[in-house]
Amino acid sequence: VRWPAGGRSSGLHCGIKKHSPDLGVILFDGGIPWAGTFTQNAAAAACVGWSRARLGSPARALVVNSGNANACTGRAGRDTVIETARAAAAELGCTPEEVLVASTGPIGVPLPVDRITTALPGAIAGATEDALPFAQAILTTDTTTKVAIEPAGDATVMGVAKGAAMLAPGMATMLAFFVTDAEVEHPDLQRIVSRAVDSSFNRISVDACESTNDSVFAFATGSSACDLEHLQAAFRRASEDLAEQMVRDAEGGTRTVRITIAGADDDGHATGLARAIASSALWRAAVNGGDPNWGRVLAAMGSVDRNLTPDLVTLKIGDVTVFDKGEVTSTFAEAAPEMANKEIDLRCWVGAGEGATDFLTTDLSPEYVTLNSGGST
Amino acid sequence: VRWPAGGRSSGLHCGIKKHSPDLGVILFDGGIPWAGTFTQNAAAAACVGWSRARLGSPARALVVNSGNANACTGRAGRDTVIETARAAAAELGCTPEEVLVASTGPIGVPLPVDRITTALPGAIAGATEDALPFAQAILTTDTTTKVAIEPAGDATVMGVAKGAAMLAPGMATMLAFFVTDAEVEHPDLQRIVSRAVDSSFNRISVDACESTNDSVFAFATGSSACDLEHLQAAFRRASEDLAEQMVRDAEGGTRTVRITIAGADDDGHATGLARAIASSALWRAAVNGGDPNWGRVLAAMGSVDRNLTPDLVTLKIGDVTVFDKGEVTSTFAEAAPEMANKEIDLRCWVGAGEGATDFLTTDLSPEYVTLNSGGST
Repeated sequence: VRWPAGGRSSGLHCGIKKHSPDLGVILFDGGIPWAGTFTQNAAAAACVGWSRARLGSPARALVVNSGNANACTGRAGRDTVIETARAAAAELGCTPEEVLVASTGPIGVPLPVDRITTALPGAIAGATEDALPFAQAILTTDTTTKVAIEPAGDATVMGVAKGAAMLAPGMATMLAFFVTDAEVEHPDLQRIVSRAVDSSFNRISVDACESTNDSVFAFATGSSACDLEHLQAAFRRASEDLAEQMVRDAEGGTRTVRITIAGADDDGHATGLARAIASSALWRAAVNGGDPNWGRVLAAMGSVDRNLTPDLVTLKIGDVTVFDKGEVTSTFAEAAPEMANKEIDLRCWVGAGEGATDFLTTDLSPEYVTLNSGGST
Repeated sequence: VRWPAGGRSSGLHCGIKKHSPDLGVILFDGGIPWAGTFTQNAAAAACVGWSRARLGSPARALVVNSGNANACTGRAGRDTVIETARAAAAELGCTPEEVLVASTGPIGVPLPVDRITTALPGAIAGATEDALPFAQAILTTDTTTKVAIEPAGDATVMGVAKGAAMLAPGMATMLAFFVTDAEVEHPDLQRIVSRAVDSSFNRISVDACESTNDSVFAFATGSSACDLEHLQAAFRRASEDLAEQMVRDAEGGTRTVRITIAGADDDGHATGLARAIASSALWRAAVNGGDPNWGRVLAAMGSVDRNLTPDLVTLKIGDVTVFDKGEVTSTFAEAAPEMANKEIDLRCWVGAGEGATDFLTTDLSPEYVTLNSGGST
């Protein structure tokens, strides 16, 4: 698992978590173009504010910690980000503004910045082309590292991500870091990344909870020529791959559901309906138990679209049509075998429009509740 | 538990459920004024469509079944409602249009209407002033009957309700039935009931899932004079009492949370923020475990209000201020004792506006997931 040419990284334990790796850095030889998308949450973390403000200028390095989100931490949290950027800049001989910062973990806990600044020189000195220690250092309750590599003509796009919970990105995503050796300037890269995010991370939901720290960073080291079409396709494949890895490793998740909506007014309408289904605690509990209780799907769509016409709606679970243009067409027992799979296809036709979407989600399990019901104190 | 003068009811087992009571009727001596509010869900049940269409004309009786929502059941479902109204009308010697119909239970299952029509003559003949059999017949996974009685000057307002899950009423509520002996015409009664619903059932959430069958019915038998102000106050108290009973009997609920929002732009803004907190699976899981993980409260508010300014926000859990105008003011450990109570007060000041709300919700427990993860087949 090696970064494309020009990218180096490291990951180590600096003491924010008890034992596991919690500090990662990505380094480049000089200031390079990068693109990013960030959470729209109004309670965004201090690091999100800092990195977002750097959009459009070159980046030399990125520092990320896990085990603490540095969100809702007030003035001290903002100072922490600046101290982190300064410490990295001093080691690298660049300006603090060339250093991006990201964080993930619990919200509202003061971040002990001295542990980061103390460990940074070693992290920077130890950076190599091996991406694995970095991929491990960004995890929280994830159980697997998440990596995707895609060819883009002669160039390569590689991404590393983390997911788990508080995962319902809107116009943004959880933490994902891409490096490509393609030669591409910021405006093109930003457009390519925004599109890739929209068809991948923005179409998944684990628990309908939007994070304060969602961030995607994409860096272009520029050593390989690549046409923009290939680069767009590679970013799209890599993003969809990582988004799917996130859902498969969702906190407490035991099944994945691919929701397909067709016949909507437009793609935005379709995605809104899919997101409503993916946010229904009742439907997600039914998925957990393998119960084809599809009335909860219709109720979820009807709660967000007041113009939905049940007589135009058809629902299919796997190969079984359960509801056809307003009429019940199978018993729950007939549909039950389709719900026994680890991967469930739920297809909904909602009218005669051209709007459509694919959306990926998971079940709601007792384990998800237990995982999130304590541990802060 | 006796209805105000002029109201009679019964409840019995007709065979929709295996054993417990599943059919209720309320009867009046002649056509009387009534008011109602209904779900705004586009996948509303056939009975909701029927009863809503009767608003403004007098009512003679109401028939309600539990164990089947008769929602998303197509043409057969609509026929079922008409057959039910006709059967009751034939017994009572009135028109089918004077008979209101309500249902609650699983969605998407054909309703065996012959079991209702066969049992209706006995249910009508057996109606008495005792409301308890009716209160029992409307329950689904509720564990207790829900009754409220309030004086309104010389008149009385009495309400009976059911709750449990798929409970996040918006402009409507779950099933609730009020009878008052007050003399009041439809327009005044409708205004009084709509206001009472808005400050009670519309300010609770169990699982953020809006039902296809939410309905409130209020009947006025007219034997007692009562000024409208007293009547409004009595309906408000009775509605808030029943709404609170619903939350305390929420599926899988182990604690209640009273969310108070102040300083919002207006009351609607405040209620939107409260609803976002009440809908957060992560915050609700934390409540289940007694974990004061308040960052999830800020993340939930920030996900629905892009203009929220954390530096203006103050959060208090019980007596402990955890976040004061953007700064962390206590550790999780210091706030933990406040989360150990069965009833938790969460107070949020979000700015300098005049908008405020009270909102009542519950925790998300592993038991809620288990209760809703099977049983349809």
